Amino acid sequence: MKPVKIGICGLGTVAGGTINVLKRNAELISGRAGCAIDIVQVGSRKLKDHVDLAGIDFTTNVLDVASNPEVDIVVELMGGYDTALEVVMTALKNGKHVVTANKALIAVHGNEIIELAQSKNLVVAFEAAVAGGIPIIKAIREGLSANAISSVAGIINGTGNFILTEMREKGRDFADVLKEAQALGYAEADPTFDVEGIDAAHKLTILASVAFGVPLQFDAAYTEGISKLSTVDIEHAGELGYTVKHLGICRLHPEGIELRVHPTLIPSDKLLASVNGVKNAVLVESDAVGQTLYYGAGAGAEATASAVIADLVDVARVINSSAHAAVPELGFKPKHVKALPVLPMEQVSSAYYLRVLAKDRPGVLAKVASILSDKGINIESIMQRESEEHDGVIPMMLVTHVVCESAINSAIAEIESLADISGSVVRIRIEHF
Amino acid sequence: MKPVKIGICGLGTVAGGTINVLKRNAELISGRAGCAIDIVQVGSRKLKDHVDLAGIDFTTNVLDVASNPEVDIVVELMGGYDTALEVVMTALKNGKHVVTANKALIAVHGNEIIELAQSKNLVVAFEAAVAGGIPIIKAIREGLSANAISSVAGIINGTGNFILTEMREKGRDFADVLKEAQALGYAEADPTFDVEGIDAAHKLTILASVAFGVPLQFDAAYTEGISKLSTVDIEHAGELGYTVKHLGICRLHPEGIELRVHPTLIPSDKLLASVNGVKNAVLVESDAVGQTLYYGAGAGAEATASAVIADLVDVARVINSSAHAAVPELGFKPKHVKALPVLPMEQVSSAYYLRVLAKDRPGVLAKVASILSDKGINIESIMQRESEEHDGVIPMMLVTHVVCESAINSAIAEIESLADISGSVVRIRIEHF
Repeated sequence: MKPVKIGICGLGTVAGGTINVLKRNAELISGRAGCAIDIVQVGSRKLKDHVDLAGIDFTTNVLDVASNPEVDIVVELMGGYDTALEVVMTALKNGKHVVTANKALIAVHGNEIIELAQSKNLVVAFEAAVAGGIPIIKAIREGLSANAISSVAGIINGTGNFILTEMREKGRDFADVLKEAQALGYAEADPTFDVEGIDAAHKLTILASVAFGVPLQFDAAYTEGISKLSTVDIEHAGELGYTVKHLGICRLHPEGIELRVHPTLIPSDKLLASVNGVKNAVLVESDAVGQTLYYGAGAGAEATASAVIADLVDVARVINSSAHAAVPELGFKPKHVKALPVLPMEQVSSAYYLRVLAKDRPGVLAKVASILSDKGINIESIMQRESEEHDGVIPMMLVTHVVCESAINSAIAEIESLADISGSVVRIRIEHF
Repeated sequence: MKPVKIGICGLGTVAGGTINVLKRNAELISGRAGCAIDIVQVGSRKLKDHVDLAGIDFTTNVLDVASNPEVDIVVELMGGYDTALEVVMTALKNGKHVVTANKALIAVHGNEIIELAQSKNLVVAFEAAVAGGIPIIKAIREGLSANAISSVAGIINGTGNFILTEMREKGRDFADVLKEAQALGYAEADPTFDVEGIDAAHKLTILASVAFGVPLQFDAAYTEGISKLSTVDIEHAGELGYTVKHLGICRLHPEGIELRVHPTLIPSDKLLASVNGVKNAVLVESDAVGQTLYYGAGAGAEATASAVIADLVDVARVINSSAHAAVPELGFKPKHVKALPVLPMEQVSSAYYLRVLAKDRPGVLAKVASILSDKGINIESIMQRESEEHDGVIPMMLVTHVVCESAINSAIAEIESLADISGSVVRIRIEHF
């Protein structure tokens, strides 16, 4: 199938990530999409050197991209409202599909953009606008298409979640952590959008619309930030069994929708309460499947690029529309399916938990340790227990570093052959993820 | 657009759930799909009365469905290998798309089924075969299409996870919990497939193929069950900072893939370690987005139906293939988008955490409690702290039951007007999810 040609507007972090991933994974992406995705033009007020643009036409006028007759899909990665809106509307008027990562643009101007796209039978895709690389728009619109969705709640601003995590774990106060977040590049010099919940409200507005099938209503969203939250309340909440998160919550009622962003206590044993640092997570409540949760990186160049490119692949399928353009069963078109074998377990590496029952004699631990050491197996920790059964046998628990399974198997065989060892060694693999 | 016509083979739990959800959410589903999905025939050896089949043709010969000229999509929900394989191959030979929830069938016979489907330009969809209602196949094949995926690890058998959760939380032994799982209907009379990891290996085989683009290789999967796991090792693991889970793990290497199901220790602070009971979760590691995690119900009639119907909607879009058949921007076709307003916060209900600074005089708590009670606000818990600043002011923390925001606002105004109260009341909303 012939390549789909794209033009990218903007040359910031996300644009750089998108260009890099499209290049690095070009073969893999065309194997999934059924056609190549070629960047024919990039537009940005300034040329920047963090991306290699060799072989790609460059223009300082982003509207050139929206009017380029070569371009099938315009990728808007500039951010902001004004020029971005002009680019997107011009692209649609010129019959081009649009992919955007711009949450503010969709939350505020989405209704008019979508109306124009639909009247021209074009696609506007915005997976990257919400929760970065988590495919949450796809999960809601397609994965849960059977469901009446009743609510969506999410940690959808990584900066805010990083600040709250630090406040809770280290008892630091808001202003102190904000400064660190700014130094780390997690927060902007003007942190208002992140800490006052405006960014989260943009994303929540979009989530509510795709979950409930209602127009985008950002102006009506209730927004309360975390800048006035005090560490003492986070501590008290912890003692009461709760964790404080900055949540976006939307909920469907017959007479309207709830659309609100504010600090919220959630029971500490809920999965959402365990989402820490800059990570995002979205919890969807629906009638058929019940609760589902989606977790991952909510920001970052390549994480956001992941969502931008997923949209590009989807639009490429629409452009090449036919049953052949459906998602391939094994994720890749048949000629891209690789005949890789499954590796035998002896070739798999892992850390291991071992439980050895040792007779209570001096030197047993030294013998076991020396067998492991001879096989090149490093021990991370050892724990010994008093024998509970007073039978002179002491359980000894060892945690190893990562090692090939063949090595641990041969070490276990030697340990089991020691006269000081009773019965067989219990072996359970450890993964740190 | 004209309705897409489906025929369902099988009349067990999942078929019942699918028929019920298709009926209950018919309007919503056609609003998303752009056309109605009509059940024209159901085939099952026996007619069962747990589903209302009014208006639907019924046959005791499932092969009738695979040959019915009225049917566009055959939905195979019988399970097992033999008849299911015959039904699916017959349907494809007759030019019908196939949707199936049958993990064993796809893991074992998937390569030949997919080959036939591709040669006939038909879709075989199997979202429901892995992790029930979690849209994990879609997330991997479409949501992460930009990514080189390096590993997938999942808790993909709810029965096994329920047993391990009980063993860990209550110190019970395997045989004891298995009996309860059987009584609760979580485990079959013959629990081999679940507890020995065969069911998980079927699902993992499919996950590996869609993640890495390799043929299905169930026969080469390594499978180790949980039936020999002892409670004492789960306890020791806990003391070492680990939680034991029955994981399916696949990992890509240049020379082959790892494909293994076995008990695994994972650090207890990882999200995957917090997935308890019958729930499933899948962790995907990839190069652009990093780690993403997908969580939800891995089994159950309507949870699985959710995935079956998502596939039906996708196939309906392929059948009605055109740009109009793309996923609607707001999840629903324009005429199904509802003009619902956003509710004012005063109409939103929530539980609340309140922090009140009370002067250290008798009766303050009683006054606060009586204000709340007058507004119909029930108190769930109260916690008082000694004043740390020795200024005679005592912080009092209250957690309320769910109440309308207008009530809490008016109560707070009254509390703040008390002479015994210092400064303003801190109010943070609580959600229990």
